[in-house]
Amino acid sequence: MTKAASTLQTVNTPAVLVDLDIARRNIDRFQAYADAHGLKVRPHIKTHKLPAVAEMQLRAGAVGVTCQKVSEAEAMVAGSPEIRDVLITYNILGSEKLEHLVALARKVTLSVVADNETVIDGLSAVFASETAPLSVLVECNTGADRCGVPTPDAAAALAQRISRAPGLVFGGLMTYPPAGGAAAVESFMTRAKAFIEAAGIDVPVITSGGTPSMMDAAQAPVTTEYRPGTYVYNDRSLVSRGVCGWDDCALTVLATVVSVPAANRAIIDAGSKTLTSDLLGLSGYGHVLGRDDIAIDQLSEEHGRLVSEDAINLKVGDKLRIVPNHACVVTNMVDAVNIVEHGEISAVWPVAARGRIV
Amino acid sequence: MTKAASTLQTVNTPAVLVDLDIARRNIDRFQAYADAHGLKVRPHIKTHKLPAVAEMQLRAGAVGVTCQKVSEAEAMVAGSPEIRDVLITYNILGSEKLEHLVALARKVTLSVVADNETVIDGLSAVFASETAPLSVLVECNTGADRCGVPTPDAAAALAQRISRAPGLVFGGLMTYPPAGGAAAVESFMTRAKAFIEAAGIDVPVITSGGTPSMMDAAQAPVTTEYRPGTYVYNDRSLVSRGVCGWDDCALTVLATVVSVPAANRAIIDAGSKTLTSDLLGLSGYGHVLGRDDIAIDQLSEEHGRLVSEDAINLKVGDKLRIVPNHACVVTNMVDAVNIVEHGEISAVWPVAARGRIV
Repeated sequence: MTKAASTLQTVNTPAVLVDLDIARRNIDRFQAYADAHGLKVRPHIKTHKLPAVAEMQLRAGAVGVTCQKVSEAEAMVAGSPEIRDVLITYNILGSEKLEHLVALARKVTLSVVADNETVIDGLSAVFASETAPLSVLVECNTGADRCGVPTPDAAAALAQRISRAPGLVFGGLMTYPPAGGAAAVESFMTRAKAFIEAAGIDVPVITSGGTPSMMDAAQAPVTTEYRPGTYVYNDRSLVSRGVCGWDDCALTVLATVVSVPAANRAIIDAGSKTLTSDLLGLSGYGHVLGRDDIAIDQLSEEHGRLVSEDAINLKVGDKLRIVPNHACVVTNMVDAVNIVEHGEISAVWPVAARGRIV
Repeated sequence: MTKAASTLQTVNTPAVLVDLDIARRNIDRFQAYADAHGLKVRPHIKTHKLPAVAEMQLRAGAVGVTCQKVSEAEAMVAGSPEIRDVLITYNILGSEKLEHLVALARKVTLSVVADNETVIDGLSAVFASETAPLSVLVECNTGADRCGVPTPDAAAALAQRISRAPGLVFGGLMTYPPAGGAAAVESFMTRAKAFIEAAGIDVPVITSGGTPSMMDAAQAPVTTEYRPGTYVYNDRSLVSRGVCGWDDCALTVLATVVSVPAANRAIIDAGSKTLTSDLLGLSGYGHVLGRDDIAIDQLSEEHGRLVSEDAINLKVGDKLRIVPNHACVVTNMVDAVNIVEHGEISAVWPVAARGRIV
């Protein structure tokens, strides 16, 4: 890291750094696990929002990508000719979004999810007149209590509605389970699959996701595909869960100490506009690499407060690297990230799908 | 609000709405208070990041604006010929920021703050060769324990260092006090002012800030200027403190119900990428207007979970307006806001200073 100081010291802070060597290693690690267990990988791009990192994931063996919003998918597809298979894991509603969805489906292999009839009927209304049908998966609630049909019966009912709907084809089952939810996924999906097949409908894909439990994905063998997101960068929440170590964290925030107003307190130029207020159950807003004694106990928009029980031993102008609690949301705060390779800044990449909320 | 449905129903969600009629009323209310008490107003633009709203504040009587970062000030100055007096309430360090600061100082009346010698020396090094000196205020810690010198003595020492530094002129004293900190401000600033004047240095400005206690600003009569930020929009945190009511909240998030997966649960298409995870001591992530029974108990990036103790009584496709916990950070999440006047969408304004973190 001594060599890195040469380029890292010149970066205007706060800045988001993405170490591509670490990201590559993280990508390869899960791809190897998935390959060994016969699972397809469809990474969620929300973590990086970068077409070039999606290309790394595809070249490593991913079958396509996952996006959460239509506009996010558009940005990714526009950013790389290699992104040609996209699953949008969201209930899509409203005429403007549906128009964009139709345009996107003409360009790439597209699938979406639905957990209710209103969404299915809306999709059917616009895809009925299209040449190729849209693949729609049924989102299932396997315990996270966010979206998703509550029972395998309900999943089967929606699968039938999709397969009867003009312009649509039933694409399979999707879930975003809670951490440790492999058994619940296996139980729900096995039953739902049986019900749907009993109705004479094929279930081509059963897709699950979530980085915290990704190395247990094979404990739900009914699953055909996995959608990890954060795994590419990792973050403090994953270190705290024992999923990875600090050396596996590809995304860091470079910050400068702007004030040391008390012996045990220092202020950095990164606040909630960079690190975000996401806690993910943790205490404090990030980990200062190499300084286990420091807590980031308070953020305002442009200030981060660092405290230590002893002397904080920092001076104004010092630069620190911080692993944020949640990498995905940090990516969304900046227009561009600084790419680090072999310990040096090698490029600055615009975050193509940043802020794509519709 | 029935008329509003015509334009609001067509907005692609999630979307941030800014009601200019309410914002104008909020601006006028504090300006009237300040005028009555002989206080100058220098609004913090972090809340809106919109040159046109800064113009509204200036036309109502504000003497200039406050920005937190150099790049934020650049965006605001570039966006309006009326913004010609800017205070950046931040310790500015590093060659790239200092270069930009020099360029900005050639265009507008600029002042900055410092709470340590390293910052003062850095400013002096680049302004020594400029025709006009840079005004530097000393930041004082009056209890918020963020930045700021700890004692009036320390403030006086830095004031002397500034007044001796080539290229700089001492501009006064600045603080961002904790809520209810008027007495602490009066005590600290009165003593600091006396020490500095005893050294033969004039203290032209004593500036304080913070919306929660703005209507008590006159309880610190030593103050010459006040920097309210959130007052222009208000938010759930200010309603919860009794500072304003829901009708005074100019910024709302328009969201669509995308799923009603259980009788007492609904999911909206606004998550932490729009509402943010800022809690500001509250429980839940925002207030659904007209639905006191609903709590937004969980956000993921693109989902907000609404729960009610009884039937939630929403259907897929319903649109809701949400007052976020913290308006300033929501502004920073979107590329543009929808302007509402007389209950109708009248314009879409790009958020000129969004994401300006350096």
